[in-house]
Amino acid sequence: MRKTITISAVTAFMLIIALFQLSAQQQQRPRVVSPEIHDDNTITFRLYAPHAGSITVSGSWDRGVEVSDELTVNSEGIHETTIGPLPSEMYTYTFTIDGVRAFDPSNPAVARDGVRNQSMFIVPGGRGDLYSTANVPHGNIEKVWYPSSSLGTNRRMYVYTPPGYMESTGSYPVLYLLHGAGGDEDAWTTLGRTPQILDNLIGAGRAKPMIVVMTNGNPGRAAAPTVQMTGRKSSEQPGMAGMASGEFEKSLVKDVIPFIEKNYRADTGKESRAVAGLSMGGLQTMSVSFTWPETFSWYGIMSMGLVDMARFGVEESSESRTRNLDRLRSSNPDLYWIACGTEDFLYNDVVELIAFLEEQNFPHTYLETGGGHTWDRWRLYLSELAPLLFR
Amino acid sequence: MRKTITISAVTAFMLIIALFQLSAQQQQRPRVVSPEIHDDNTITFRLYAPHAGSITVSGSWDRGVEVSDELTVNSEGIHETTIGPLPSEMYTYTFTIDGVRAFDPSNPAVARDGVRNQSMFIVPGGRGDLYSTANVPHGNIEKVWYPSSSLGTNRRMYVYTPPGYMESTGSYPVLYLLHGAGGDEDAWTTLGRTPQILDNLIGAGRAKPMIVVMTNGNPGRAAAPTVQMTGRKSSEQPGMAGMASGEFEKSLVKDVIPFIEKNYRADTGKESRAVAGLSMGGLQTMSVSFTWPETFSWYGIMSMGLVDMARFGVEESSESRTRNLDRLRSSNPDLYWIACGTEDFLYNDVVELIAFLEEQNFPHTYLETGGGHTWDRWRLYLSELAPLLFR
Repeated sequence: MRKTITISAVTAFMLIIALFQLSAQQQQRPRVVSPEIHDDNTITFRLYAPHAGSITVSGSWDRGVEVSDELTVNSEGIHETTIGPLPSEMYTYTFTIDGVRAFDPSNPAVARDGVRNQSMFIVPGGRGDLYSTANVPHGNIEKVWYPSSSLGTNRRMYVYTPPGYMESTGSYPVLYLLHGAGGDEDAWTTLGRTPQILDNLIGAGRAKPMIVVMTNGNPGRAAAPTVQMTGRKSSEQPGMAGMASGEFEKSLVKDVIPFIEKNYRADTGKESRAVAGLSMGGLQTMSVSFTWPETFSWYGIMSMGLVDMARFGVEESSESRTRNLDRLRSSNPDLYWIACGTEDFLYNDVVELIAFLEEQNFPHTYLETGGGHTWDRWRLYLSELAPLLFR
Repeated sequence: MRKTITISAVTAFMLIIALFQLSAQQQQRPRVVSPEIHDDNTITFRLYAPHAGSITVSGSWDRGVEVSDELTVNSEGIHETTIGPLPSEMYTYTFTIDGVRAFDPSNPAVARDGVRNQSMFIVPGGRGDLYSTANVPHGNIEKVWYPSSSLGTNRRMYVYTPPGYMESTGSYPVLYLLHGAGGDEDAWTTLGRTPQILDNLIGAGRAKPMIVVMTNGNPGRAAAPTVQMTGRKSSEQPGMAGMASGEFEKSLVKDVIPFIEKNYRADTGKESRAVAGLSMGGLQTMSVSFTWPETFSWYGIMSMGLVDMARFGVEESSESRTRNLDRLRSSNPDLYWIACGTEDFLYNDVVELIAFLEEQNFPHTYLETGGGHTWDRWRLYLSELAPLLFR
């Protein structure tokens, strides 16, 4: 008798199946390693493309500037180039094959930024390690649907619970973390590396254990555009309607906070609540600070400043601005923290914001860095902000 | 004074930022809608590629057979083809641009199968609706790290908790759901559509509310290869070592079940535990049923049968097989359910399994369908199996 199922038989069979599937995936193409991260932090990209003409690679090491490196092809049809060395960091990149953007088929790691997918890698040995999964206790990430009465729909968000949350019976302060325009509730857990940053900072004793809530800041949408809704054609673009309604901030205060404080072991009271956001999320953070000053006591505004609305035809009185700030001042917040890069297209608006706060003698903290309106900055800013919270 | 921040100013500014980012993403390329799902279930794919030669599209509608449709190019450089009509279902696809596989840059939805990323869409109006996010109460999905004593590492898994779990104080039965070779803990939540299928079946009253636990079945790995580990170069391939050790099943019983029953409101006892898996996961399911017959009472084996090990040099006695089945029989399981497609490369092995079970008068249920060793089958099988569990 040859037909059996036992543990020892399982052994050989698993290997066969694995090899079968792997070979099917590779389809007789030469095995290509890409990206290859060398010990000196140079990076080699490779693509097997014997029938393609021009292939270039461009990525976030160019800080948003489209500088493409041309790959050179060898006799086997493998295109290759080496760039760098690059500082330890997380990078996204795409190939351009005869004018068409494409990810790297040899690299399973893909990150989505809005409607655009890109391949990604991390150069280890420095800041990149903070964005990697290390040998420290890990928090968990939950995709949660919650009812939003103010927006009249169920909506999706992510909730990070810190290492030890499951085992303990204690309660934790909460950071509400807001994405930028074009983004959604996925952004802070993917490009933002929030779980890794918090795990690593908490593991090193540099940040207090906290819950982090990452919502969808587009009030007209229930969830990210990649969430395939029944009867909805996947080619539909995310609607802009509703984004400009100003209703997200209301739903954050009226729907999200009560839901979190009911369903998680969250500390309550403003001293246990922080709100921070990048770009549009920074504007929402400022908006919340002025409209509901008794809700949060810790604020983080990334890559956003005072914006000159006149060029958009919106004229406002200076009285309302000063009145808003006075209300916020009387709530006596623990931290009003602003961060921006000197190459950010909103840098001058941030300088204006700082000047206004100083002119008004409003207590604040300002972190000015190099760099622009990009995710490497927002990962850095979260890494700098989190240790300051709830102290 | 023109510099202000008020809610009404926020309104206009958000719109500007959104338009800015959207235009930056599009980079002066013509707006292309792809895929466009027409009312008659034909699908139009489009790609802007004025400098490319040959572009084809291939996808899961070919059931694993590489049939490529050539796109034709118009004077604006937009390549286009229309296929179908296709039955309502979830589909993955890629373009091939001058010989290189690429995703569809107009489609933000990407699904990963092992080391390979593909674009995806759902044709609504039938079975595809079961795989979409509908207007029903939603369960939550948690990415959880748990300690595995038997494997000596922390590992990652997904836990689906059903609609109502957060609000209730009751406990729930648990389905442990296993992926195939080449897959990982992500597979059942992405290509498998487990959260959508369970939400929709539970919402329709067709399945009992249950917890679903989706582990990583490769004992040599802590998490999916896309989880960037500190100091690990992203170009490393998932190690095969350990996959063949047979230790996953042990860790499932010794580590995973106790963790779940401690940290979730899970019903305990074998009658409240189900285990099911596809391909390698089906083999693991059988292995568990023979080795720990007192652990589960509900079994689902998808696309896996009795395998002829002799061709791999493994000879086993028929006694051990019969002895295993007798042990399982004496545990009196509620359900031993097998499903396979007639075009599956393991179909003959499944036929042998059914013949063996019938010869031994072992109670079982067999679902034979069309189709092969593909995800459309496993989504279907989960949809058919879940309503049978815990009745």
